[in-house]
Amino acid sequence: MRKNRISFSSDYTKGAHPKVLERLMETNFDQYDGYGTDEICKSAADRIKKICGCENGDVFFLVGGTQTNQTIIDMLLEPYEGVVAADTGHVAAHEAGAIEFAGHKVLTIPCIREQMRDGAALYADSIGKIKAADVKQLISNFYSDANHEHMVFPGAVYISHPTEYGTLYSNKELTEISEVCREYNIPLFLDGARLAYGLMSSRTDVTIQDIAELTDVFYIGGTKVGALFGEAVVFPHGVPVKHPVPIIKQHGALLAKGWILGLQFDTLFTDGLYYEMGKNAIRMAEALRRGLEEKGYRLFIDSPTNQQFIIIENDRLEKLSEHVGYGFWEKMDENHTVIRLATDWATTEEDIKTLMDYM
Amino acid sequence: MRKNRISFSSDYTKGAHPKVLERLMETNFDQYDGYGTDEICKSAADRIKKICGCENGDVFFLVGGTQTNQTIIDMLLEPYEGVVAADTGHVAAHEAGAIEFAGHKVLTIPCIREQMRDGAALYADSIGKIKAADVKQLISNFYSDANHEHMVFPGAVYISHPTEYGTLYSNKELTEISEVCREYNIPLFLDGARLAYGLMSSRTDVTIQDIAELTDVFYIGGTKVGALFGEAVVFPHGVPVKHPVPIIKQHGALLAKGWILGLQFDTLFTDGLYYEMGKNAIRMAEALRRGLEEKGYRLFIDSPTNQQFIIIENDRLEKLSEHVGYGFWEKMDENHTVIRLATDWATTEEDIKTLMDYM
Amino acid sequence: MRKNRISFSSDYTKGAHPKVLERLMETNFDQYDGYGTDEICKSAADRIKKICGCENGDVFFLVGGTQTNQTIIDMLLEPYEGVVAADTGHVAAHEAGAIEFAGHKVLTIPCIREQMRDGAALYADSIGKIKAADVKQLISNFYSDANHEHMVFPGAVYISHPTEYGTLYSNKELTEISEVCREYNIPLFLDGARLAYGLMSSRTDVTIQDIAELTDVFYIGGTKVGALFGEAVVFPHGVPVKHPVPIIKQHGALLAKGWILGLQFDTLFTDGLYYEMGKNAIRMAEALRRGLEEKGYRLFIDSPTNQQFIIIENDRLEKLSEHVGYGFWEKMDENHTVIRLATDWATTEEDIKTLMDYM
Amino acid sequence: MRKNRISFSSDYTKGAHPKVLERLMETNFDQYDGYGTDEICKSAADRIKKICGCENGDVFFLVGGTQTNQTIIDMLLEPYEGVVAADTGHVAAHEAGAIEFAGHKVLTIPCIREQMRDGAALYADSIGKIKAADVKQLISNFYSDANHEHMVFPGAVYISHPTEYGTLYSNKELTEISEVCREYNIPLFLDGARLAYGLMSSRTDVTIQDIAELTDVFYIGGTKVGALFGEAVVFPHGVPVKHPVPIIKQHGALLAKGWILGLQFDTLFTDGLYYEMGKNAIRMAEALRRGLEEKGYRLFIDSPTNQQFIIIENDRLEKLSEHVGYGFWEKMDENHTVIRLATDWATTEEDIKTLMDYM
Repeated sequence: MRKNRISFSSDYTKGAHPKVLERLMETNFDQYDGYGTDEICKSAADRIKKICGCENGDVFFLVGGTQTNQTIIDMLLEPYEGVVAADTGHVAAHEAGAIEFAGHKVLTIPCIREQMRDGAALYADSIGKIKAADVKQLISNFYSDANHEHMVFPGAVYISHPTEYGTLYSNKELTEISEVCREYNIPLFLDGARLAYGLMSSRTDVTIQDIAELTDVFYIGGTKVGALFGEAVVFPHGVPVKHPVPIIKQHGALLAKGWILGLQFDTLFTDGLYYEMGKNAIRMAEALRRGLEEKGYRLFIDSPTNQQFIIIENDRLEKLSEHVGYGFWEKMDENHTVIRLATDWATTEEDIKTLMDYM
Repeated sequence: MRKNRISFSSDYTKGAHPKVLERLMETNFDQYDGYGTDEICKSAADRIKKICGCENGDVFFLVGGTQTNQTIIDMLLEPYEGVVAADTGHVAAHEAGAIEFAGHKVLTIPCIREQMRDGAALYADSIGKIKAADVKQLISNFYSDANHEHMVFPGAVYISHPTEYGTLYSNKELTEISEVCREYNIPLFLDGARLAYGLMSSRTDVTIQDIAELTDVFYIGGTKVGALFGEAVVFPHGVPVKHPVPIIKQHGALLAKGWILGLQFDTLFTDGLYYEMGKNAIRMAEALRRGLEEKGYRLFIDSPTNQQFIIIENDRLEKLSEHVGYGFWEKMDENHTVIRLATDWATTEEDIKTLMDYM
Repeated sequence: MRKNRISFSSDYTKGAHPKVLERLMETNFDQYDGYGTDEICKSAADRIKKICGCENGDVFFLVGGTQTNQTIIDMLLEPYEGVVAADTGHVAAHEAGAIEFAGHKVLTIPCIREQMRDGAALYADSIGKIKAADVKQLISNFYSDANHEHMVFPGAVYISHPTEYGTLYSNKELTEISEVCREYNIPLFLDGARLAYGLMSSRTDVTIQDIAELTDVFYIGGTKVGALFGEAVVFPHGVPVKHPVPIIKQHGALLAKGWILGLQFDTLFTDGLYYEMGKNAIRMAEALRRGLEEKGYRLFIDSPTNQQFIIIENDRLEKLSEHVGYGFWEKMDENHTVIRLATDWATTEEDIKTLMDYM
Repeated sequence: MRKNRISFSSDYTKGAHPKVLERLMETNFDQYDGYGTDEICKSAADRIKKICGCENGDVFFLVGGTQTNQTIIDMLLEPYEGVVAADTGHVAAHEAGAIEFAGHKVLTIPCIREQMRDGAALYADSIGKIKAADVKQLISNFYSDANHEHMVFPGAVYISHPTEYGTLYSNKELTEISEVCREYNIPLFLDGARLAYGLMSSRTDVTIQDIAELTDVFYIGGTKVGALFGEAVVFPHGVPVKHPVPIIKQHGALLAKGWILGLQFDTLFTDGLYYEMGKNAIRMAEALRRGLEEKGYRLFIDSPTNQQFIIIENDRLEKLSEHVGYGFWEKMDENHTVIRLATDWATTEEDIKTLMDYM
């Protein structure tokens, strides 16, 4: 935390929603059983299952994103199977090889190269997403290869929603991917590290109930949406392994004081707080976008969620960086850079105003 | 948390020291860089290194115990090496195979069988500990075997202090183990999940500076001593791998909001809070022990730390369990059970009194 | 190979039975499909299944012992499971951590310490073996532990027959172990690297059909019994994984020219050659034993198979080593050493005579 | 092996060069020490090191290709590193995830898409190869990414020579890749499963000495060039791990009767037999190519080695398959298929003639 500065570099720069901290204070000297066997975890899981419409599902609370991706994928796959993902997917690109560390290949579908509009600076809204047709092609190519027993079997499909580029699947797109997965009996896993910011977008037709219906497992991100940390993993149709606990523990993902995770999600899913926080980030992102467009900034991606990407001249960026934290995304050309500005559950209108004064 | 009940089942049944929560409140809307690169982590690391007398060491903040053990051991070992440990050691017995999941064998030194006094109900204070002579024997046996390249190389030595049975190494014992390790150039790793309760025992001559001097890596437990969660890993003579961060991330142990770990340890190591909390648990354990002895309970182990073990008749235990949470340890015989009662940083004299009324 | 020397150091010091080489010569320029999909592998598998009385079973041909143990155990276990074995078992002691490399713990049953007769130099015939009661104890202890989800699940039982010490299970012992495994629904795996030398012992009541009936998987060793290399893995009741081929390939165990394995086993299982070779080694081992006893050597283990163990004075051993290759086993005391002398499928009476002249 | 048929499906359909079998016969009852510690392995290693001009190097004999790739890559990489390879590379595409099973990511450089000539049916000679510039780009992109500690480090570069498409690196191309690797201190690994067929091409300027100079490790394929099985791994500048044997054993790659591997390579590297066999396959491939061109077949790739690829009408292919074994490569379009025809060390002019009569 640096003085005289404001940061929009990411959505995990602040602590937790005050209601989460209040509840931590209130329960601090109560005594709970460990490892998620307590009653608050049960309450949180029940709330989530009810909201998702999957009363017979299973819910687990893990600590962080990479850990969660690794653990879930390891639960879904046989040793000779890999996970299908966009080459821009977090599991493919930014987890230090955690998926391979656990023994599995990421079978990538090219995403960037294909999807940049020729001659246009603006990425299509499809950046970061995979298409049902591409998934089907990959799976059917695999099975039509006479030597496929010498290759890695596609054993699960990973998507993120919102994606790493802030884009969203439509209900139709999600349904199509789900149908391909079910046709081949391959589980579909949705990484919802930023789920609230997808659900509350003004440009989405996907609800959490849709996700529970169309996927085999997804997680509801807490780290980036109002929790100190924590991801709630939902298997809407039941967990597919006989003993999930030792698997979670082997992956270093079983928190001793599990109730601290349960307590956070129990709070987030009381009185619609999770949605409310999502809505705030979206409102602020829209204000941010309007402000940027008014100032003449060129958008890099047409993002409907809390991450906004702009193209900025290097000189201007250098000045900006004295007062504003931003996420470096990539070099555009010799004189321009792409940066990310992310709003979150706690961003205020005042913050946007401050930022705009610097831009 | 159940009403009309008190629990001494473990030392991780409550939240965090109020000062930790206060600091979380104060900094909640400040913005920090992620993954432990922030200034609070730096401050906490500096405090710890200063206290330990290892200014040139390296400190990392991880989330939980099993995760920490797995990550450290993986950092220390070549692929063909295993870790030497007591067969009662946490890494050998109670981590769901996390060490093997990361590819390494635990080379065990028998501990229980050897160390129970013949004909005596009371475990010697050596239970849970390994001896320098046994470590030396294991290593020299290995190297004297002509076929040792077909066996698992002893590549690190793991000890816990206090042990899983509440016992402590003396300075002499620790020095001897350290000497064997250095003779064979094998790193010594001390699991300090309950370190405060060892350092503050009235029956120890081991300081944190001794540990920093005699080991190659150890960790200072937060989960069981006043933090919501977190373990501070100290490499007093420097971390032995070139890139620790991706290794930590691969093990799912890199917390996004790393400053929450730093903040907790920065608080625990301000004004001697960590020691004070340790002292409280010890004082309460001594009161507990006196109370138990007065009531005629037979101790199972002569433990100098916060975990006390007694032998209790099954009938009496059944009644007790209506009001008191305890840790089941093992069956003693048909009519008796061994249970653990653990005090912690927050146990009060009132708690002990309440417990004693039920016993 | 050294001139003016004879070696009894192990049973894998020579090439292959001449009939194997003849068949290699005959088929050398025929063309076969790769990876074990050829017709000779099919023929060999059919012969083996017929002999074992398991026509609905599955047979795979792998290259070597450690590889085979690792691959089978990985097929049998869930990620959170370990394999139960004697602490003297090959998988526990002499495979450079190959089982742990593949992510699994070996859950050992102490064998040596327990089974040495007090005050006697001679090991009981139980050395190297585990008992049904000990397996049952280990499994039931596991399930009766309230925290067993934090421990490694016993997921398979490994035994070797003959054991690493040349000893054999009786039909009754094998049946009892099998019953315990079936009671708990845990597969039983028998390592038959030296199977012929067990089946042909004059002191066994166990047939290959018994093994096929009582185990879930076993292998018929070729490397030590007349093949250049190769182990035939038999799942008498069917292989328990959907896609064994990619698992075998991942473990580096899928030979490109798989028919070379098939051809060897097809030859070994034509006209009883495998049994005949076993018989030869046993006859020679009995002659060896008589000779040793006549010369007054003290046996270390009462071994009914091709590996014989004696206690010899160090001076005498030094002289012996000028002309005879032997296996160093362990130091007995300051002045004595335990050595192994192994016969094999190709040992001749002349060899025994030559050896006896040197002893 | 099917009657009235000839197969050009691959270069591993026959046994071994008769001289290999003769030597097996001659030495069959000699006795050798196990695990490659014998004198024939030493002799073979010495011959290879002398021929390669790397007397201070290290040589190991492993059994098969996937096993060798997995073991070498595991020796070269830190846990957080991956291996750079063409997306068509054997390690990326056809090893059932063996590299990931051992914990490492394959960092792929797109090869097919980039390198097909627009509008041309004929693949450029660059198919299957990576370029120094692309390797440099990948590595420098990695290091210039501020978050690269959250990504997989490029830790080794894998190339095959000949490639999976029969193409060859020029000395210039190889030198350039080697220079990039040395600039970044990243080892270069060359898979020579078909090395003889590259070295003996009439269109190469790369010698085995060049390879020993320019790479850090490579292997000389035996399985596809006159051995029953076996790959000779050469570390021309020394093996980079302290204990290679347990690593080899953990990967199931340590053959008990190691001398059988040594013996084969000792024979192949006596009197230039390895080169002679390579030459034969090349001569036959050239005759095959001439024959195909005369018959008007369209080549798919301009391959200078023993694998030839043609485009054939589906009707014609169906007829052909009654008498000729071929390798299915891929569908070209609705009516055409790409097939591979491979010659080998034992292909005769008579075989080519027979084939041509059927084509």
